[in-house]
Amino acid sequence: MKHHTRVRVRYSETDQMGVVYHANYLVWMEIGRVELVRAIGINYKELEQEEGLFLAVAETHVRYIFPARYDQEVEVETSLVEVASRTLDFAYQLRAVDTGHLVARGSTRHVWLNRQMRVTRLPQRYLDQLRLHSTKAPEPSSV
Amino acid sequence: MKHHTRVRVRYSETDQMGVVYHANYLVWMEIGRVELVRAIGINYKELEQEEGLFLAVAETHVRYIFPARYDQEVEVETSLVEVASRTLDFAYQLRAVDTGHLVARGSTRHVWLNRQMRVTRLPQRYLDQLRLHSTKAPEPSSV
Amino acid sequence: MKHHTRVRVRYSETDQMGVVYHANYLVWMEIGRVELVRAIGINYKELEQEEGLFLAVAETHVRYIFPARYDQEVEVETSLVEVASRTLDFAYQLRAVDTGHLVARGSTRHVWLNRQMRVTRLPQRYLDQLRLHSTKAPEPSSV
Amino acid sequence: MKHHTRVRVRYSETDQMGVVYHANYLVWMEIGRVELVRAIGINYKELEQEEGLFLAVAETHVRYIFPARYDQEVEVETSLVEVASRTLDFAYQLRAVDTGHLVARGSTRHVWLNRQMRVTRLPQRYLDQLRLHSTKAPEPSSV
Repeated sequence: MKHHTRVRVRYSETDQMGVVYHANYLVWMEIGRVELVRAIGINYKELEQEEGLFLAVAETHVRYIFPARYDQEVEVETSLVEVASRTLDFAYQLRAVDTGHLVARGSTRHVWLNRQMRVTRLPQRYLDQLRLHSTKAPEPSSV
Repeated sequence: MKHHTRVRVRYSETDQMGVVYHANYLVWMEIGRVELVRAIGINYKELEQEEGLFLAVAETHVRYIFPARYDQEVEVETSLVEVASRTLDFAYQLRAVDTGHLVARGSTRHVWLNRQMRVTRLPQRYLDQLRLHSTKAPEPSSV
Repeated sequence: MKHHTRVRVRYSETDQMGVVYHANYLVWMEIGRVELVRAIGINYKELEQEEGLFLAVAETHVRYIFPARYDQEVEVETSLVEVASRTLDFAYQLRAVDTGHLVARGSTRHVWLNRQMRVTRLPQRYLDQLRLHSTKAPEPSSV
Repeated sequence: MKHHTRVRVRYSETDQMGVVYHANYLVWMEIGRVELVRAIGINYKELEQEEGLFLAVAETHVRYIFPARYDQEVEVETSLVEVASRTLDFAYQLRAVDTGHLVARGSTRHVWLNRQMRVTRLPQRYLDQLRLHSTKAPEPSSV
């Protein structure tokens, strides 16, 4: 599944090089995955509050291709790459809407934590829901 | 009491105007008051964790005088202006160390919240400790 | 003139108190005024690039009423309060869309700077355009 | 060369999971490399201002091992891994000072840009200075 969402570059996100400060791409990638998960029918906020499940970031990788600038709209294309019981992998392409430039590419890996901040399994019903939308063939449910 | 602490301007704190983005002064003012409180002998982190007391921000006021720039050291002078049982008032002067320029002046008002996010009284021993260092004459302890 | 725009609270904007970190309200207020100015027909980005005019922040004041939380939509109501040749004043009300709670109220004062970072007059045509939308009666054009 | 510098976790850097928001590690890694470069005798601010050279971020990779928390001191160990005429590679280890926990590991790749935002060669004297401190054997100067 590929999901598209847009952000407009904020003044606070620029730096004195006149372009977007590089750490902000991670913030936009987070917006991308939250909106993808919402589109699937899962509200991440409720997962935290009601299930006590937290999607911690385990790894991030970003390649910066072309700088985004103040006031540009950037389209974040998010793909749900792989769904395992304890981990989740996303990939991202960020594109400036006006010029069509590819701004950045990235990937993130996540682990599910419980309220005690320990790695935990995602309940089966959420797993099933996510797997329907992963871009990889679903793995057989591990027993 | 006046307390002095220093921050060095980070690249991420600049914007495309080539100066520090204005919201970051609030972050530095927070560093100033946490360090002032630590200097008095109170660890704010422990107040949160052990007492369940949170110092919420109720009001902020900043006057921006002269822009701070990347890599400058900025001295944050923090004064504990007034200590009441439910509120706390700080004032700040921010100065560039190299040029001596006054960068900004500000003030913040705070309220104590408990874990349920309700306004609460600060326990007397902390009140007493803070009042010793307020720049105003201490008020008689309210009964 | 009152202008309304919405932001959705990002995870990065929360802090460990579980609510929005207070400095982020200034970022949203900036989004509000940029969108108000755009609605009037002025593109702030072009003012910077083509006219070499920068709208520096001279003063900010925020009263925090009720905390906004992750994933809430917040409506920023921005009013253009006063337009002078060298300064601009805005006022803001921030409201959580789901609960209707007033989240914060604020005001900002700005000065126009040129590329040399000196205070400058806004060209008359922009002044006229802004004054049409100020909530105060327009001042007679100063000679 | 390995360089060590420390940051104290700011309240603004935490999120509602109660730990440091993951994008902030990139900010600390930047502090690490600026301080490493300063220790070598190069002031990055002057490179920008006087030479018109900008060290753009081309790639970042972070593995998050153990969450850092509010008020902890974190030691950023930065290594200058490879110095080429147009690119620069750094590696990082971040450690919580109080517990000794490895917080994160990361790497960044950079390219030199000129004022027109085009990839450019670093002048030879800076190259020589940096190569003295790279952890890899210096390459023969390319002609």
